[in-house]
Amino acid sequence: MTTAGQVIRCKAAVAWESGKPLIIEDVEVAPPKIHEVRIKIIATGVCHTDNEYLFETGKGMKFRPFPLVLGHEAAGIVESVGPEVTNFSPGDKVIPLFLPQCQDCERCHNPETNHCRRNWANTQAGVLADGTSRISCKGQQVYQFLGISSFSQYTVVPDTSLAKIRSDAPLDKVFLLGCGVSTGYGAAVKTGKVKKGSSCAVFGLGAVGLAAVMGCQIAGATTIIGVDVNPEKFEKAVFFGATECVNPKDHTKPIQEVLVEKTDGGVDYALECVGDPAVMSAALESTTDGWGICVIAGWTETEVMQVEVEKILMGRTLMGTYFGGWKSVQDIPTLVDNYMDGKLKLDEFITDHLPLDQINKIYLWLLVCKL
Amino acid sequence: MTTAGQVIRCKAAVAWESGKPLIIEDVEVAPPKIHEVRIKIIATGVCHTDNEYLFETGKGMKFRPFPLVLGHEAAGIVESVGPEVTNFSPGDKVIPLFLPQCQDCERCHNPETNHCRRNWANTQAGVLADGTSRISCKGQQVYQFLGISSFSQYTVVPDTSLAKIRSDAPLDKVFLLGCGVSTGYGAAVKTGKVKKGSSCAVFGLGAVGLAAVMGCQIAGATTIIGVDVNPEKFEKAVFFGATECVNPKDHTKPIQEVLVEKTDGGVDYALECVGDPAVMSAALESTTDGWGICVIAGWTETEVMQVEVEKILMGRTLMGTYFGGWKSVQDIPTLVDNYMDGKLKLDEFITDHLPLDQINKIYLWLLVCKL
Repeated sequence: MTTAGQVIRCKAAVAWESGKPLIIEDVEVAPPKIHEVRIKIIATGVCHTDNEYLFETGKGMKFRPFPLVLGHEAAGIVESVGPEVTNFSPGDKVIPLFLPQCQDCERCHNPETNHCRRNWANTQAGVLADGTSRISCKGQQVYQFLGISSFSQYTVVPDTSLAKIRSDAPLDKVFLLGCGVSTGYGAAVKTGKVKKGSSCAVFGLGAVGLAAVMGCQIAGATTIIGVDVNPEKFEKAVFFGATECVNPKDHTKPIQEVLVEKTDGGVDYALECVGDPAVMSAALESTTDGWGICVIAGWTETEVMQVEVEKILMGRTLMGTYFGGWKSVQDIPTLVDNYMDGKLKLDEFITDHLPLDQINKIYLWLLVCKL
Repeated sequence: MTTAGQVIRCKAAVAWESGKPLIIEDVEVAPPKIHEVRIKIIATGVCHTDNEYLFETGKGMKFRPFPLVLGHEAAGIVESVGPEVTNFSPGDKVIPLFLPQCQDCERCHNPETNHCRRNWANTQAGVLADGTSRISCKGQQVYQFLGISSFSQYTVVPDTSLAKIRSDAPLDKVFLLGCGVSTGYGAAVKTGKVKKGSSCAVFGLGAVGLAAVMGCQIAGATTIIGVDVNPEKFEKAVFFGATECVNPKDHTKPIQEVLVEKTDGGVDYALECVGDPAVMSAALESTTDGWGICVIAGWTETEVMQVEVEKILMGRTLMGTYFGGWKSVQDIPTLVDNYMDGKLKLDEFITDHLPLDQINKIYLWLLVCKL
């Protein structure tokens, strides 16, 4: 029996208000409208950003409207398509995208940026192109986080915010390319353009940081220093390519001074994968004068970073990456290919699989991680 | 009668202490030591930086030792050379360089940087390679600002801090390539790599800013917005290539908002030529998301810039330029050629010529400029 054109009733983890645990609810997911695609979510990650929008609105994050279904790092299967959709068919394996690629605007034609703004204001506000969400619960509209909401068994996204991937890709692995791994890997190879033989420091060894370490290794960096205050992360960092790891807590000097001494002047590339302005300053200051590049991959929306002007004048560059610099629709299928070909690791990022109704356990774990 | 090997007695403007006017004194300039060259200064500019080291030590500038002979933007003629000097002969026209190029170190062999560090610590401390100055007055060592001291009729510099230029170059014009014009021009064409058809905003329309405007024009930018709080500078900015000028005082909104509106999203390149951290933040925020580049060319040593992290994450790049990114010894002769060929303007930067004994008038004028 086809569900196309029908409202689908399914489970979703609803955030009714900021700062409270998610509640598993029966929700209604409306059929896709023009240029929209409804997908069945097969696997989703819980990104720190999901956590922060729930628990830290106002502390570095802009306000998002509630009730909200979070989740933005996922993979699924097309259930049905709305009018005018030509690139997707039911059964296609897909990765929903918080960064669209309309392939039609000036930005999509510009090779120097991936910042397509199709539906931008709406998806940032938690709705789709017509200004409404497709998800409702108890008769109330539930906002879609970044236009996605992957903590629902079904969701609807714009057809410009969806990448079609090969049919043999394991969705419970490649969902990681929907955010964290693509961001960290791209920060190194696409935005920072880490060079062969260079020295790198990666600040923060969560999924984004580990992916950045992997990117530095694939780019041929010969020194890759992982930096984290939790030494339990070091073993995995070494697995992904770190040549050594440093715990700032083991030193009385600021970590940037430790790294400058260790590398005889500073690293060629520093990749900030935490989202903390103080760590960003430390990362910039750990790079060498003359040509040091600091790429910010960690997320924060309202915070301000302190930059010693002389560090910039002496030849350092400060850059940011958004979704790793990838043009989302065109590049994600290639990253999936890279995984299938063994070039990119994904399996080792995954520590656990849990059913949707245990999602709060992951939130609790993320909270513990931050402590 | 040759002066080679002899102490030369001549006039110099000595800064005996911070915050006080310069005093014209008889000084003694010792012969050049190994790998040093003594030059007769024919023309020098008075750069804002000279002013700031005299009057603003501690306010954005690091301490420099006094007594001091300032001056670092100059041109002259080789009077004599010390032992082991092979690249210079008496009579050569030269431009002394606050940024050396030894052509021998790893940095000089690296095309991505001009930050040679030969004699760096010493020249920053006001002395030459052996830890002493060649200038003395009333029996007391007088420090050499950045290892140069062009406010003296004669001075001695390291042979790696000197560019030989063509014999037909007018020294009373090309001295400008010793700092301001090279810095501003290079900020646009060398560090920022301004592209044809792009939009640019230049903050501060002094010599560095006007040279940046000229660089943007030569690079083929089609929108070049000059920004200054002194509208008297606008006519010259238009002469050098500004397509329009904006006075922040004419607007109630912050200047970055004015520029973002005016350019429908922000400029492609912003060049900060003031040296004020608040202006630097405004410059960065006036660039477009996605690919905006902000180049800091204005000088400050101890100040901190506030950077909204989201601006960086949304695809803006913050860079700094030092001496315009030029490899000093090799590139300055080319810039002199460009001037002689009519590609670079220099004459129009010069508003007045004054003899050395009236140098305090220029300082007074610079002070007025800053008010």
